[in-house]
Amino acid sequence: MDATDLRRRLDEARSARLATVGPDGKPHVVPITFAVDGDTVYFAVDAKPKRTTDLKRLRNIAANPSVSVLVDHYEDDWKRLWWVRADGAARIMADATQTERALELLARKYPQYRDARPPGPVVAITIQRMAGWAAIENPAR
Amino acid sequence: MDATDLRRRLDEARSARLATVGPDGKPHVVPITFAVDGDTVYFAVDAKPKRTTDLKRLRNIAANPSVSVLVDHYEDDWKRLWWVRADGAARIMADATQTERALELLARKYPQYRDARPPGPVVAITIQRMAGWAAIENPAR
Repeated sequence: MDATDLRRRLDEARSARLATVGPDGKPHVVPITFAVDGDTVYFAVDAKPKRTTDLKRLRNIAANPSVSVLVDHYEDDWKRLWWVRADGAARIMADATQTERALELLARKYPQYRDARPPGPVVAITIQRMAGWAAIENPAR
Repeated sequence: MDATDLRRRLDEARSARLATVGPDGKPHVVPITFAVDGDTVYFAVDAKPKRTTDLKRLRNIAANPSVSVLVDHYEDDWKRLWWVRADGAARIMADATQTERALELLARKYPQYRDARPPGPVVAITIQRMAGWAAIENPAR
């Protein structure tokens, strides 16, 4: 899978999974909605109901910025499987103007965010490495 | 989401995402096919083409057995979102009889594994904690 294909599949995916690491050295993984701009992946803490413990993702990032973001496709026909992973460094955004811009990107991708802007915070992940795999490298689309 | 619902959604899912942690403290996440028996999740290294570096999941587990397994459902109607996570301790199976039994469970779930038994190794994850979330707790099914 070439760099263009990796990026296209990441950009087009509607949801991803975010893996972080806790101070105890244990992994934590949650689904996220996200938007990509250049080499940055943005996601927001949104209004989907959460218990307090779900913000473990933010505590983990504050202590260890290394994250891994996976988008993948599964179906029972394994010839159609693929995945793309973006590893990077996450930070919780502090700048109001930059945060607003990220929320705008998220709202462009998800109508739900246009109706109800996520309260945040917003996390920005600088992509440092991408990898991917597809059962069939260049399927007819 | 109650314990029965958590287990049912995990059991029924066709694919999951496995997060591990590297010796460098960085998370790593890959999609897996898997089978559940009691409190154990099994997955096999299979014949889906892989580069050597993809076995990072096994190196990570050998050094740090803590893993997190996520199954989730996304669709653009966010009222139908849900996810279930199983955190646990992973080990690469050494016992031939137990490995054979795990491969049998995987073959029962996936026809592809009946046609071509995965070469392995097989990893067993003892579930230590489950968590989950659904936008609507008890949807009509």
